[in-house]
Amino acid sequence: MIVSAAQEHELILSVLTSRGARPDTADLQARWLVEADLRGQDSHGLRRLPILARRMERGLLVPNAEPVMSWAAASVLTVDGQRGFGPVTGLSAVRHAAGRARQAGIVLAAVHGANHLGILAPYTEAVADQGMIGIALTTSEALVHPSGGRTAMIGTNPVAIAVPARPDPLVLDMATGEVSMGRILRHAELGEPIPAGWAVDAAGEPTTDAAAAAAGAISPFGGGKGSGLGVALEVLVAVLTATALGRDVHGTLDAEEVCNKGDVFIVIDPAVLPGGSHLAAVSAYLEEVRATPGQAGSAGARVPGDRARAERQRRRRDGVEIPGPVWRAASALGPGAAALRDSG
Amino acid sequence: MIVSAAQEHELILSVLTSRGARPDTADLQARWLVEADLRGQDSHGLRRLPILARRMERGLLVPNAEPVMSWAAASVLTVDGQRGFGPVTGLSAVRHAAGRARQAGIVLAAVHGANHLGILAPYTEAVADQGMIGIALTTSEALVHPSGGRTAMIGTNPVAIAVPARPDPLVLDMATGEVSMGRILRHAELGEPIPAGWAVDAAGEPTTDAAAAAAGAISPFGGGKGSGLGVALEVLVAVLTATALGRDVHGTLDAEEVCNKGDVFIVIDPAVLPGGSHLAAVSAYLEEVRATPGQAGSAGARVPGDRARAERQRRRRDGVEIPGPVWRAASALGPGAAALRDSG
Repeated sequence: MIVSAAQEHELILSVLTSRGARPDTADLQARWLVEADLRGQDSHGLRRLPILARRMERGLLVPNAEPVMSWAAASVLTVDGQRGFGPVTGLSAVRHAAGRARQAGIVLAAVHGANHLGILAPYTEAVADQGMIGIALTTSEALVHPSGGRTAMIGTNPVAIAVPARPDPLVLDMATGEVSMGRILRHAELGEPIPAGWAVDAAGEPTTDAAAAAAGAISPFGGGKGSGLGVALEVLVAVLTATALGRDVHGTLDAEEVCNKGDVFIVIDPAVLPGGSHLAAVSAYLEEVRATPGQAGSAGARVPGDRARAERQRRRRDGVEIPGPVWRAASALGPGAAALRDSG
Repeated sequence: MIVSAAQEHELILSVLTSRGARPDTADLQARWLVEADLRGQDSHGLRRLPILARRMERGLLVPNAEPVMSWAAASVLTVDGQRGFGPVTGLSAVRHAAGRARQAGIVLAAVHGANHLGILAPYTEAVADQGMIGIALTTSEALVHPSGGRTAMIGTNPVAIAVPARPDPLVLDMATGEVSMGRILRHAELGEPIPAGWAVDAAGEPTTDAAAAAAGAISPFGGGKGSGLGVALEVLVAVLTATALGRDVHGTLDAEEVCNKGDVFIVIDPAVLPGGSHLAAVSAYLEEVRATPGQAGSAGARVPGDRARAERQRRRRDGVEIPGPVWRAASALGPGAAALRDSG
């Protein structure tokens, strides 16, 4: 079914506020889910709401928690999310870091104790909107096998990088798995095979059977290099946030465990540098990439962030396509649905 | 032919000192080339010496230049290499950054005006040896085409990350191209085809003809994701160092142009964080990755840095294999060879 972003936002808001979230924290979490659906990253959209709701009911997510921040060093901020919403904690961390980056030039924010951040791009975009460079990293449950290995030992460990440019910033946002588990699950629901190279089965053998892949592990993107990058980010985030590694990570996909992954933000203010933001040169280079002749059968070369921006514009205009079961599952969590259940 | 690391080092030292390099700067540059050959990254080893020598003769490389450093902000160091050796500038930058990272927690060093850094791993290892996290980035001549594009517009843009662990640090060092141009050229020399996916020809069409690939562009690793990462790093480094982008980058592969690429180092001291270096947990996780059952036909899962370390040990013991033409070209640059030429 097709809904507007406003309709989706309203539904999420009602589900979260009916479970005790203040309007401001609920609004921020709702915006993050809607943004994911607007950009076509629907594995991080409305389908995450039931888990968030159950986590709230069980005290694994404390919707109005105030993140506790302290400066571990002049340029390093540590943030304890206190089981709050990921976007509430993450955006607070980024804003505090950005404030000090104006003087220090670079600031790192190391976050633990927050729930799932959702899509990473908007944290870095919030930084780029202020003329600064934003980098975001987060770990997740082990879903990806190392290159050459048979079992999942690495999170999907996404990285986002935003660099100011005209007319729009460069915004990279990519996981280090070849594909999301959400996409594998959708192929399984539809009974469709998955492309070779996406995943291995429970025995660690490459498979094109989506159901077998869902019981196995996602393959790293780009073979040994992508696998190495995933392992490096797993370790980097864990050290900086003193959080769990590999199969010990829980709490972003389940409603049973405290979320024990880590998040890292880096903010750099190019205004402190002699060359400033190098805006004209960077913008010209990105235009050159966009304009380069495309390979046969391809949509041409893309600048990171362009596709998500175009998807977002289209869906803001035409609406967001939400699978019926996802909309109904979310609606069933609303206060109206609860009243119906209670009286029924 | 097989030579010892000491023999290779001595040859390089004589070539560089005979062109005016002081013993200390020549030693550092020599060690960087030998390290590359020891680790099997021979595209960054002895075969780079003739270009370095010619650059010195033409004043494009000033061997005893003192890098000019200044703090642009509390945690941002800018470094002008003054046309010096890459390793001399890079290691100075890293050491200055590491000193301040003890207090600030994180420091960024932005370098311009240095010659080719050579392999990146040792800069980050020098940081990890002090119990800190090191990250290194550098741009290069445009050799890689963007995903969907036909022509080279992106540097090979490597990234290195070292994180302290026991018994050895994790050391990622990877370019964002699928393969180095050096490997393509070697296939071309031997008249061997290259695997599909490595490169495109001058018209931008995928090719397995090594000679055609050498006239074309390297493909990004990991398709759209690797391409996006390469573009993001190109822009990130250019902004931070106010250096050239894309096809405007020169001076690491030629002996005609001033080197106008940029280098970025980030040093983070985990000792400032409540969890410290998280050493036991990280080391246990990396051991688990090493021990996981391997896929059929693979050498098993690897931790970044393990292979290079093993290669290095083997070659330190058994010697370094250097192609005859590479050794002879280097030897012909030595002071003995020059004396022969002058008297001949």
